Amino acid sequence: MHEQKFENIINDQMPLTEKVAEQITQHIVSNKLSSGEKLPNEFELCSMLNVGRGTIREAVKILVARNILDIQRGRGTFISKNPGEIKDPFGFVFYKDKVQLVYDLLELRTEIEPWIASLAAERSTEEDIKSLEDNCQLVEDEILSGNNHLPADVDFHVSIANCTHNSVVPRLIPVIARAINAFGAVTNNSLRSETIIGHRDMLKAIKNHDVEAARKAMLEHMEINRRAIEVVLRKSQNENES
Amino acid sequence: MHEQKFENIINDQMPLTEKVAEQITQHIVSNKLSSGEKLPNEFELCSMLNVGRGTIREAVKILVARNILDIQRGRGTFISKNPGEIKDPFGFVFYKDKVQLVYDLLELRTEIEPWIASLAAERSTEEDIKSLEDNCQLVEDEILSGNNHLPADVDFHVSIANCTHNSVVPRLIPVIARAINAFGAVTNNSLRSETIIGHRDMLKAIKNHDVEAARKAMLEHMEINRRAIEVVLRKSQNENES
Repeated sequence: MHEQKFENIINDQMPLTEKVAEQITQHIVSNKLSSGEKLPNEFELCSMLNVGRGTIREAVKILVARNILDIQRGRGTFISKNPGEIKDPFGFVFYKDKVQLVYDLLELRTEIEPWIASLAAERSTEEDIKSLEDNCQLVEDEILSGNNHLPADVDFHVSIANCTHNSVVPRLIPVIARAINAFGAVTNNSLRSETIIGHRDMLKAIKNHDVEAARKAMLEHMEINRRAIEVVLRKSQNENES
Repeated sequence: MHEQKFENIINDQMPLTEKVAEQITQHIVSNKLSSGEKLPNEFELCSMLNVGRGTIREAVKILVARNILDIQRGRGTFISKNPGEIKDPFGFVFYKDKVQLVYDLLELRTEIEPWIASLAAERSTEEDIKSLEDNCQLVEDEILSGNNHLPADVDFHVSIANCTHNSVVPRLIPVIARAINAFGAVTNNSLRSETIIGHRDMLKAIKNHDVEAARKAMLEHMEINRRAIEVVLRKSQNENES
């Protein structure tokens, strides 16, 4: 099963460079190359895949654009950190109705994050809790220093998702959270103190393995966030109308 | 708000081609160019962005690799269908423990799809129901013709997600469903008839706007799918061990 090719449909209508990019991907997968490991050099790839250097170079560029490979000048080509994960994997930037997008993201987030918090309370290890505590502290430090705490805030939520030991949810949360944060109700001071309190409540519930308290704390936190964002959205809608 | 740039951090440490790719993306966003619309030609982009043709070409290649642009030879460069959406946006192909991945995806799917079905029952319009009926029929036709029904099956689930009028969930479902289907318990005949019955139950509940019945029908459908996939996974684990 582990050897099984996952989604390796190499289509005859694909351009050659796409086919070669797919073959390089398969090489990475079947040889279980990890982040930071070096890809064979151009010369080796040419003879492995029986194509010219120009084609290899174009295929590598495609894989760099998809965050699968990383070229380090003078050192070679390496497997990226979190290969294949990209910044905006659903093309949110191209949504025309951004206000609708934010409401839709909030709806999804309000559904899954309380569930994630409850799983976190159920499954977290001592090591998870340690890392969650560090992340919680980091958000507070950023808020109290007057810095933009949103990146640390996303990390805290990812850290909760890590407690679930489900390998997919920690990848999903930042995509949703960052797109919502782009509209940030950041400057709102009361929200900052509510963030500190809300995060502490979640941390405590997860630490106590209290499934229901964790779900409830996250739900309240989502609700406060939603209200703050709605204020920002309504303000901007009024500005657009006036 | 609609004019606001979404995530336009152009970093000074970015390579020039990445910067130009970001600028072209911003051009698409701020001019609200839609799928199928034509990008300005190379010459126009050169003078707009004040860089050479080589740089424009490399930047365009990056955007093609990310499914944002589509080059049609002899016709020009166009905005892709569903710009920015890519096949495997979380890099599932690079997960080393594929069995764990499938369990994790099933867990997420079992959480969100019943919720999606209940929203679909609440919000579906007559037009949504019509499209859902067509998709339901298509799956049955594929099954009864002995074809691989999984692509149509994914479309049926996306069609349910469309009924929610949440613009994000229809993008999320195929990513999860396709990765699970890659392990397909496809050949199992009893699963095929259970798929037909399960899909009909969901369709009926959504058509009747029966929120609880829709949730329940989806949950049962997920459970049957999960069991079928567990059989496949256990079999392959046994093969690996023996």
